[in-house]
Amino acid sequence: MSQATNQSWGGRFSEPTDAFVERFTASVNFDQRLAPQDIQGSIAHATMLARVGVLTDDERDAIINGLSEIKGEIERGEFEWSVPLEDVHMNIEARLTDKIGITGKKLHTGRSRNDQVATDIRLFMRDAIDVIEAELVRLREGMIGLADREAETIMPGFTHLQTAQPVTFGHHLLAWQEMMARDHERLLDCRRRVNVMPLGAAALAGTTYPIDRHVTAELLGFERPAENSLDAVSDRDFAIEFTSFASILLMHLSRMSEELVLWTSAQFDFIDLPDRFCTGSSIMPQKKNPDVPELVRGKTGRIYGHLMSLLTLMKSQPLAYNKDNQEDKEPLFDAVDTVRDCLKAFADMVPAIEPKKASMFEAARKGFSTATDLADYLVRKGVAFRDAHEIVGQSVAYGLKAEKDLSEMTLDELKQFSATIEQDVFEVLTLEGSVAARNHIGGTAPDQVRAAAQRARDALAAIKGEAQ
Amino acid sequence: MSQATNQSWGGRFSEPTDAFVERFTASVNFDQRLAPQDIQGSIAHATMLARVGVLTDDERDAIINGLSEIKGEIERGEFEWSVPLEDVHMNIEARLTDKIGITGKKLHTGRSRNDQVATDIRLFMRDAIDVIEAELVRLREGMIGLADREAETIMPGFTHLQTAQPVTFGHHLLAWQEMMARDHERLLDCRRRVNVMPLGAAALAGTTYPIDRHVTAELLGFERPAENSLDAVSDRDFAIEFTSFASILLMHLSRMSEELVLWTSAQFDFIDLPDRFCTGSSIMPQKKNPDVPELVRGKTGRIYGHLMSLLTLMKSQPLAYNKDNQEDKEPLFDAVDTVRDCLKAFADMVPAIEPKKASMFEAARKGFSTATDLADYLVRKGVAFRDAHEIVGQSVAYGLKAEKDLSEMTLDELKQFSATIEQDVFEVLTLEGSVAARNHIGGTAPDQVRAAAQRARDALAAIKGEAQ
Amino acid sequence: MSQATNQSWGGRFSEPTDAFVERFTASVNFDQRLAPQDIQGSIAHATMLARVGVLTDDERDAIINGLSEIKGEIERGEFEWSVPLEDVHMNIEARLTDKIGITGKKLHTGRSRNDQVATDIRLFMRDAIDVIEAELVRLREGMIGLADREAETIMPGFTHLQTAQPVTFGHHLLAWQEMMARDHERLLDCRRRVNVMPLGAAALAGTTYPIDRHVTAELLGFERPAENSLDAVSDRDFAIEFTSFASILLMHLSRMSEELVLWTSAQFDFIDLPDRFCTGSSIMPQKKNPDVPELVRGKTGRIYGHLMSLLTLMKSQPLAYNKDNQEDKEPLFDAVDTVRDCLKAFADMVPAIEPKKASMFEAARKGFSTATDLADYLVRKGVAFRDAHEIVGQSVAYGLKAEKDLSEMTLDELKQFSATIEQDVFEVLTLEGSVAARNHIGGTAPDQVRAAAQRARDALAAIKGEAQ
Amino acid sequence: MSQATNQSWGGRFSEPTDAFVERFTASVNFDQRLAPQDIQGSIAHATMLARVGVLTDDERDAIINGLSEIKGEIERGEFEWSVPLEDVHMNIEARLTDKIGITGKKLHTGRSRNDQVATDIRLFMRDAIDVIEAELVRLREGMIGLADREAETIMPGFTHLQTAQPVTFGHHLLAWQEMMARDHERLLDCRRRVNVMPLGAAALAGTTYPIDRHVTAELLGFERPAENSLDAVSDRDFAIEFTSFASILLMHLSRMSEELVLWTSAQFDFIDLPDRFCTGSSIMPQKKNPDVPELVRGKTGRIYGHLMSLLTLMKSQPLAYNKDNQEDKEPLFDAVDTVRDCLKAFADMVPAIEPKKASMFEAARKGFSTATDLADYLVRKGVAFRDAHEIVGQSVAYGLKAEKDLSEMTLDELKQFSATIEQDVFEVLTLEGSVAARNHIGGTAPDQVRAAAQRARDALAAIKGEAQ
Repeated sequence: MSQATNQSWGGRFSEPTDAFVERFTASVNFDQRLAPQDIQGSIAHATMLARVGVLTDDERDAIINGLSEIKGEIERGEFEWSVPLEDVHMNIEARLTDKIGITGKKLHTGRSRNDQVATDIRLFMRDAIDVIEAELVRLREGMIGLADREAETIMPGFTHLQTAQPVTFGHHLLAWQEMMARDHERLLDCRRRVNVMPLGAAALAGTTYPIDRHVTAELLGFERPAENSLDAVSDRDFAIEFTSFASILLMHLSRMSEELVLWTSAQFDFIDLPDRFCTGSSIMPQKKNPDVPELVRGKTGRIYGHLMSLLTLMKSQPLAYNKDNQEDKEPLFDAVDTVRDCLKAFADMVPAIEPKKASMFEAARKGFSTATDLADYLVRKGVAFRDAHEIVGQSVAYGLKAEKDLSEMTLDELKQFSATIEQDVFEVLTLEGSVAARNHIGGTAPDQVRAAAQRARDALAAIKGEAQ
Repeated sequence: MSQATNQSWGGRFSEPTDAFVERFTASVNFDQRLAPQDIQGSIAHATMLARVGVLTDDERDAIINGLSEIKGEIERGEFEWSVPLEDVHMNIEARLTDKIGITGKKLHTGRSRNDQVATDIRLFMRDAIDVIEAELVRLREGMIGLADREAETIMPGFTHLQTAQPVTFGHHLLAWQEMMARDHERLLDCRRRVNVMPLGAAALAGTTYPIDRHVTAELLGFERPAENSLDAVSDRDFAIEFTSFASILLMHLSRMSEELVLWTSAQFDFIDLPDRFCTGSSIMPQKKNPDVPELVRGKTGRIYGHLMSLLTLMKSQPLAYNKDNQEDKEPLFDAVDTVRDCLKAFADMVPAIEPKKASMFEAARKGFSTATDLADYLVRKGVAFRDAHEIVGQSVAYGLKAEKDLSEMTLDELKQFSATIEQDVFEVLTLEGSVAARNHIGGTAPDQVRAAAQRARDALAAIKGEAQ
Repeated sequence: MSQATNQSWGGRFSEPTDAFVERFTASVNFDQRLAPQDIQGSIAHATMLARVGVLTDDERDAIINGLSEIKGEIERGEFEWSVPLEDVHMNIEARLTDKIGITGKKLHTGRSRNDQVATDIRLFMRDAIDVIEAELVRLREGMIGLADREAETIMPGFTHLQTAQPVTFGHHLLAWQEMMARDHERLLDCRRRVNVMPLGAAALAGTTYPIDRHVTAELLGFERPAENSLDAVSDRDFAIEFTSFASILLMHLSRMSEELVLWTSAQFDFIDLPDRFCTGSSIMPQKKNPDVPELVRGKTGRIYGHLMSLLTLMKSQPLAYNKDNQEDKEPLFDAVDTVRDCLKAFADMVPAIEPKKASMFEAARKGFSTATDLADYLVRKGVAFRDAHEIVGQSVAYGLKAEKDLSEMTLDELKQFSATIEQDVFEVLTLEGSVAARNHIGGTAPDQVRAAAQRARDALAAIKGEAQ
Repeated sequence: MSQATNQSWGGRFSEPTDAFVERFTASVNFDQRLAPQDIQGSIAHATMLARVGVLTDDERDAIINGLSEIKGEIERGEFEWSVPLEDVHMNIEARLTDKIGITGKKLHTGRSRNDQVATDIRLFMRDAIDVIEAELVRLREGMIGLADREAETIMPGFTHLQTAQPVTFGHHLLAWQEMMARDHERLLDCRRRVNVMPLGAAALAGTTYPIDRHVTAELLGFERPAENSLDAVSDRDFAIEFTSFASILLMHLSRMSEELVLWTSAQFDFIDLPDRFCTGSSIMPQKKNPDVPELVRGKTGRIYGHLMSLLTLMKSQPLAYNKDNQEDKEPLFDAVDTVRDCLKAFADMVPAIEPKKASMFEAARKGFSTATDLADYLVRKGVAFRDAHEIVGQSVAYGLKAEKDLSEMTLDELKQFSATIEQDVFEVLTLEGSVAARNHIGGTAPDQVRAAAQRARDALAAIKGEAQ
C-alpha cells in the first residue's frame, strides 16, 4: 500500500513523492485563484451528469450543496489549501468528500484534470476579458471626450522628434484612441476563441460515459464544445493570443507614456499631470515625477516577457497534455492583472491631463513648422513640388543663420528664394491657417477632429450595443 | 549649394551625407521588394489627383505610362537601384522624372514617404496574406482527407509522452486541423485590420490639397481610409498582429513537427515519410533524416524572434513617424516568406504521410492503455470513481511486476483486486472497444472522427465562400 | 500642508496620492524581500558616516541597534509593512525613526533610494549567485559520478533523432556536464560584474557629504565602488546578464529534460526515474509521469520571458533612474528562485537515474548504427571516403529490404557491394568495437570517458579552490 | 540507383529530393559566407591528416593547392554555387574533386559536416569578435576624449526625465563609457568560450581514424579541442552568449540614442549633430532628422529578436545535431553585421557631437536643480535630513507659485521656511558650486571627471595590452 494515499493516483507507486518534488510540482499556490471557476464548472458538470443519468438527483444536489459551502469557505478565507493535494482541483474534491462522503468521489466521473483545468482557465479568461473591456471602454471614452474639448488646441506635430507641422492636440489624442479601438477589436476576436468548452475531452480522448457536452456548454455560457479532445486539453493558443493582444496594447500604452513623460519635462512643458498621479523624491525636494506613465512603460517588458514565455512553453510539445503546461497560469494571471491595472490607471489619468496651451502654441510657432505650407503655397502658384521643396529648404537654411522663423521674415527676404512669393503668403504661415487647411478625413483640422470624435463615439456605442 | 542634390531634401543641408551613413540608413536594398505596390499606389494616387483637379488628365497619363514602363524595367531586372536615392520611393520617382520630366515631380503632391510606405506595406501584406491563406487551405484539406482515411487506425494516445489511452490516428490528425482552423480565423481577422488605407495622411497631419481619400481607397481595394493621420503613418500594430499570427502558427507546426520527428524514429516507428521529403548524411550512410519537420521546428525561433523584434521596435516610440520604423520591413518580409514556405512544405508532406498501422497498433496494445476503461467498467458496476482508480492502480502495479498487460491477466488475477470484475471485462479491454466507446462530439470514436471531418470540410467551404 | 505627510517627499505636493495610484506604484509587496540586504547596506553606510564624522559614534550605534532590532522583527514576521510608505527602504526608515527618534532621519544623509536600491539588489544577487553555484557544483559532481560509472554502457547515439552511431552512456552524460561547466563559467563572470558598489552615487550625481566609498565597499565585501554615479543608479545590465546566464542554463536543462522524457517513454525505454520524482494521473491509473523534467522544460519559457522583460524594460531609457526600473525586481527574483529550484531538482535526480542497459544496447544494435564503421573499414582498405559512403549506402538499402542489420548479413551478401570486404569486417561491426575505436580526446571510447571524467573533476576542484 | 547522385548521401535513397524541399532545406545561399573559414579549416584538417599518416604529403599538397585555387575563385566571384549541393561544405568539396580527382574525396576522412560547420562558425565568430572589438575600442576612446574635453560643461541631470541636479556633460559621457567597458568585458569573456575547437567530433561520437586534435587546434589558433564530441557538434551556446552580449550592447546604444534624439529636439536643444549624420524629409523642407541614433535604437529590436530566435531554436533539442541548427546562421550573421555597423556609426559620430553649452547651462539653471544642495546646506547647519527635505519642498512649492527659482529668492523669502538659512546659502545654490561639491570617486565634480577619464584610458590600454 502506497504511503502517498492522500494523492489521487497512489495505486501504482512504490514510494511517496520526494518532499521537494512535491512542492516543486504543486500548483495550488497559484491555481487556487481558479477556485470560483473550478466550482462553477463542477456544478455544471454534476448537473449534466444527473441529466444523463450518471448521477441521481440526490447525488447531484449533495455535490452542489457541498461545493457551494466550499465556495463560501474559500471566500471567507477559511479554506485550508494543502500542497500534498497538488492543485486546486484535488483540494476542492478532497474537501467535498470530507463533507459529503463517497458521493464526492463520483464528481470526477467522465472528466479529468486535463479538461477540467482547461475549462477553468477559459472561464477565468472570459471573466477577465470582460473586466478589461470595461476599462478599455472607459479609457476610449475619456480620450474621445478630451479630444473633442481640445479640437482647436495647437501643438507641434513631430516626426523624428523634430518639429514637423502644427497639429491639434485633439487630433493627437484621437491617434491614441484609434490604437485603442483596434486593441478593442482584437480583444473581442480573442474572446470568441476563448469561449469554447474543453470539458468532455476528459484526459485526452473523450470518455465512455454518456455525457452531453452541449448541455454543459449551455450551462456555462460557452458558445460550443471544442471539436477535438486531444486539441482541447493540450492547446493554449487562446492564452498566447490574449498575451499578444496585451503586448500590442502595452506597446501602445508605452508610446503614450513616453509622450506623457516628454510632455511633463521642463523642456517640453506641454501638460500638467495632477499631483495625485505623481510621486516625489526622497532626496530631491523639488521633484514631481510622472510615475504612472513611467511605470506603465516599464510594464511593457513584463507583458512582452509573458508572451515570450508562453510561446516558448508551447514550442515543440507533442500531444496531448504535458506537465509543462502547468506553467501557463502565472504569466496569464499576471498579464490579466497588469493589463487591467494599466488600463485603469490610464482611464483615470487621461481625462485629468491639463494641456498648457500657451506653451504648446509657442513650441509650434518655432522650428519652421509651416515650411510645408510654404511649399504647398508655391505648388499652388505653379511650382513643381520638388522644386518648391528646394526653395523652402534654402529659406530655412537662411532662417537658421538669421535666427528667424519663416513667418518672421519680410516679403523681400522670402522673395530672394522665389519671385512667385507674394503678400498672401503670410496667411498660410499662421498656425491656425496651417491646421485648418488639412481639412479632409483623417486630417488635423479642428472640424475634422470634431467629426472624427463623433464617429469614434458612434463606433464605441455600436460595439457596446453588440456586446449586450 | 549642397552637394547632396540627388537627394529629395538637400536644401537646408550644408554638407553631404557621410558615405557610411548613406549606406547605413538606406533601405533600398530591401524595400525594393515593395516596388509593385509602390507603383500600384502611385497610379491610384495620380488617378485621384486628376479626379480632384490637382493634376491634368495629360499629366496623369504621363505619370501612369511612365510608371508602367518602370514596372516593366523592374520586372525584367533592368532597373538600376541607387543607394544614394535611399529607398524604393525615391528610386522610382527619380526614374519617373528622368522619363517624363517635371511632371514626374508632381506625383508627390499631397503625399509623403511616410504615408506612401505605410500604404505600400499594407498592400504587400494583403497580397501576402492571400497567398498564405491558399496554402493554409490546402494544408487543412490534406489533414481532413488523411483523417477521414485513417478514422479507424488505432495508435497510442500520450500524455506526458507516456502511453495514456488508445486513440485513432484520424482523431489525432483532426487535432492538428483544429489548430490550423483557429490560425486561419486569426489570419482573416488580421487581414481586416491590414486592409485600411494610410494614404492621405501625408507626412503626419494630412495635406492642404483637396484630396479625396475615398476614391483612392476604392481604387486600391481598401475597405476604408484610416481615421487619423498621425496614427496612420506611425503605427505598425498590423505588422505585429501578423507576426503574432505567424508565431502561433509556427508554434502549432513545431508541435506537429516534433511528433513527425518522434514518429519516424526507430523507437516509435509509427510512420514513413517519403524519401523526397528527407535527406541523408555525408558521413553515416544509413541515415534518412526528417529534415522538413526539423527545419520547420527550427524556423519557429525565427518567427518568434521577428515578433519580439517588432514589439521592441515600437516600444516607447513617440508619435509620429520615426526612423526606427524602417526596421519593420525585413522581419516582416522574412516572416511572410517563412510562413508561406513552411505551410507549403506541410501541405505537400502531410497527405504523403504513410502510417505504419501494425506498429501503431502494437504500441497501443502495451502500456496498460486500457486502464481507464477498466476503471470506468468498475464505476458502471457501482464502484465510486476514486476507488476504482485505486483498484486499477494496484492491478497495474501487479502487471508491472508480472510483466503482463491488463488484457493478458486471467479473470482470477483481476479478481484479486476487486470481486466485482467479471468475464465481460475483457470486452472493454480491447483497443477497438476502447476507442469506439468514446462516442460523443470531440471523442476519438471512428464515427465521431468521420463526422468531425465532415464538419471541418463544411466549415472550410463556408470560409472560402465568404472570402469570395 | 499636504495630507501625504507620511511620505518622504510630501513638501511640494498639493494633494495626496490617489489611492489606486498609491497601490499601483508601491513596490513594498515584492521589494520587502530585500530587507536583509537593505539593513546590511544601511549598517555599513552608518558605519562609514561615523568614520568620516557625519554621524557621531552614539548616533551610529543607535542606528545600528535600531536596525538590528528591526531585522529581528522582520525575521519573526512581526514587522507591519505599509503600502503608503511605498517601498522597503521607507518602511524600514520610518520604523527606525519610530524607535530611535530624530537620529533615524540622519541615516539617509549622503545617499538616495536610487543608490540604495541598486546596492540592495547587487547584495541580493551576490548571495543568490553563491547559492546557485552550490547547486550547480552538486549537479556537475552528480553527472561526473554517473558518467564514470556508466563509461562502458552502450546506447544509440542520435542525430536528427535517427540512430546514428553507438555511444557510451557515460559519454552522453559528459556532454551534459560540459554544458553545465560553461554555464558555471558564465555565472562566475557575471558575479564579478555584480560585485561592484553603487552606494555613494546618491540620487544621480554623487553627494556633497565627505563620504568614503572605499570604506563602505570594503565593509560590504564589494570589489570596488562603481566608477560613475549616473551609470551606477540607472543601469541594470548585471540583471540582464544574470538572466542571460539563466536562459542558457535553462536551455541546457530543457535539452536534458527532453531526453529524460524521451528515455522514460515506452518507446525508448532507456531509463527509469525513481517513483519519488514522478507523479500519476487522477484518471488513468497506470500513469507514471516524468513531471520533474517536464516542468523544468516548461520553466524554460519563464526564464526566457524574464530575459525579454528586462531587455525591453531597459530599452531606450534616458539617464538616470526612471520609475520603469522598479519593474526589474520581480523577474529577477523569480529567475533566481527558478534557477535554484531547477538545479536542485536536477542535482537530486540525475544521480538517481537508472539506465536500462539491455534496452539501450538492443536499441543500439538496430538501425545500422555501425554503417560508418563499415565505411571507415573500406577507407582503411584504400577506398576513397565518398565511394565507401556510396557502397555502404547501397548495403543499407539492401538491408532495409531484407530486414537485416549489417552485422546480420553474410560475407557474401556484403561482398556484393564491394569485393574488398573480408572476414575481418565483422569485428568492426560490433558495438563494443565501434565505441572503443573512437579513442581520441573527446571521443566516446570508455577509456576516453573515464579520462574526461577525471579532467572534469579536476577542473571543478580548481574552480572551487579559486572561489575560496 | 538514385537519381540524386550529386548528393553526398544518395546511396540508400529510392527517389530524388522534391525540388521545393531541396530549395527549402538548402543552406548554401547563406552559409557560403563561411567559405573562407571552411577552407581554412579544411587546410588544417588535411595538414593534420598528413601528419598522422592518413594522407600522404602529396595528397595533402594537392588538397591544399586545390582549396587555395577555390578560395581565389570565390574571392573573385567566379565560383558557381549550387543549391542541389546543399551547403558551402559540399559545394567546395565537389569543386575540389572536380579539380584534383579522387584525392578530393579523401578530405572528408575523419570528419563530418557536423563538426565541420561547428568549426567554421567558431572561426567566423572569432574573426567577427575581433573586428567588433576594434570598433568598440574606438568608440570608448572617442567617449573618453569627449568627456575629458567637456569635464566642466554643466547640464541638467535628470531622473524620471525631470530636472534633478546639475551634472557635467563629461560625467554623463563617462556613464556611457562605463556601459561600453562592461560590454567590452563581456565580449572578451565570450571570445574565450568561442575559441574552442569542435573538429574531431565527427558526426557525433568521434572518429576511428588516428587523428590528433591538438595539432589541428594549434594550426587554427584554437585554445583547445572541445572535451566532448556530442556536445561539440550540437551546442550553440556560444552563439547565444554572443547574441546576449549584442543585446545588452544594443540596449546601451538605444539609451544613448534616445538621449541623442532628445538632445537634438527643439525642446532640449542640447547638442548639434553634424549634417553628415542626418537626413531630411521629402516633404518638409525644414527637417534635419537624427537618423543615425534613431536607426540604432530601432536595430535594438532586431538584435533582441535574434537572441530570442536562437534561444527558441535550441530549446528542448535532444542530442546530438538536429537540422533545426541550420537556422543558427542567419541570425548570427545579421547580429554580427548589425553590431559592427552600429558601433562604427557611433564611433564616428560621438566625437563629432557639438554640445550647445549655453543652452545646457540655462536648462540646468531652471527647475530647482539645486534643491538638494539647499537641503544638504540645512543638514550641515544641524537640521535632520528628512526635516531639511520638508523645508526645501515647501520652498519649492512657494517658488512654483511665485515663478522664482531658489537662487532668485531673497534671503527673507528663504527664511520663511527656516530661520537657519543665512547669507552663505547663495554660494551653494550656484551650478558650479553644486557640481564641484560632489567630489568623490564616481561624483560629477570636474576634477573627478578628469581623473575618471584617465583611469578609463588606463583600463582600456591594459585590455589592449592583454589582447596582444
